[in-house]
Amino acid sequence: MLPSSLDELIEALRCLPSVGPKSAQRMAYHLLQRDQRGAARLGQALAHALEVLRHCERCNTFSEETICQRCANPRRDASLLCVVEMPADLAMIEQTQSYSGLYYVLMGRLSPLDGVGPRELRLDKLIARAHDGKVQEVILATNFTNEGEATAHTVASLLTARGLKVSRLSRGVPVGGELEHTDTGTIAQALVERRTV
Amino acid sequence: MLPSSLDELIEALRCLPSVGPKSAQRMAYHLLQRDQRGAARLGQALAHALEVLRHCERCNTFSEETICQRCANPRRDASLLCVVEMPADLAMIEQTQSYSGLYYVLMGRLSPLDGVGPRELRLDKLIARAHDGKVQEVILATNFTNEGEATAHTVASLLTARGLKVSRLSRGVPVGGELEHTDTGTIAQALVERRTV
Ligand SMILES: [Zn+2]
Ligand SMILES: [Zn+2]
Repeated sequence: MLPSSLDELIEALRCLPSVGPKSAQRMAYHLLQRDQRGAARLGQALAHALEVLRHCERCNTFSEETICQRCANPRRDASLLCVVEMPADLAMIEQTQSYSGLYYVLMGRLSPLDGVGPRELRLDKLIARAHDGKVQEVILATNFTNEGEATAHTVASLLTARGLKVSRLSRGVPVGGELEHTDTGTIAQALVERRTV
Repeated sequence: MLPSSLDELIEALRCLPSVGPKSAQRMAYHLLQRDQRGAARLGQALAHALEVLRHCERCNTFSEETICQRCANPRRDASLLCVVEMPADLAMIEQTQSYSGLYYVLMGRLSPLDGVGPRELRLDKLIARAHDGKVQEVILATNFTNEGEATAHTVASLLTARGLKVSRLSRGVPVGGELEHTDTGTIAQALVERRTV
């Protein structure tokens, strides 16, 4: 009953997380009726991001370069490698201004129920990265949720088995909490009190 | 701190209704990390919809043609014109299968607080449409919310002043309710019991 281009737009909006049919319809009408400039901007931003964004070969976060600026910065301490789940977690740790090492962004977490195991999470890439000969300590800063803890446990086993020193953020972060929603003071404290595992 | 293309995508996603910064960030990571095909599809759907969709010159709904198929259908009863707020409302009335007249879609409602008055809602276009010489009765099927009722009241005044018969859906629709969330049986009854205003 709807024009096919409108139907397709509503369907396409459903690829956004937690957007159902009613919500997609509302979004489509809003964009077409009230914000055509925003719609054009979004279309272009999607196309551009898909074209230029890749994963940094060293830290795995989104980057427009092969090696991102942070990894290429010689003033960062290359002996420390902090492992986080998502770029938002990295941003929170940077905001504490109490860490000057490098990062590895998993871009997810182990989640057996969703079919995300060590292979899907490409933990082999992290292991290779941690063995560059410069890293002295790997700091696990995955979330303190069940999945984040399981991920930290698995990563710790893999890395200690290969002779690396591995530490975990101290439990200053509330159990069950997520980094993204924790105040930077608590995160800073958890960094200082990190414990060897 | 983020690559500019990623920053721009997150900003652009905020043009979607009720999407804040955290939510936009989550959407961007989801699209780039888990659903690049969906992202490409959405980008193309936006560009295509913006390119081909216009408003039907007769009923004002979204259409890829100058006159939409419904308005061009000679089997619809051209003596009845049903006024609704949004295409979703039109779809609900069509689903009742108890109406064979034509429609006019306001694409909104009077909302003085949001700066939407009779001029912004282009009620002049509705008045012109209703005076095509064929329309015998205008059925007001705006929502039974405060804004929908106010819209119906204003439209009724404008049209009756020009000698047209105007009716309103009966109050089978719950007061304060929205068509989109009403069962079709209730809407069908409200159509039958519509009252002249
Ligand atoms: Zn990097
Ligand atoms: Zn039409």
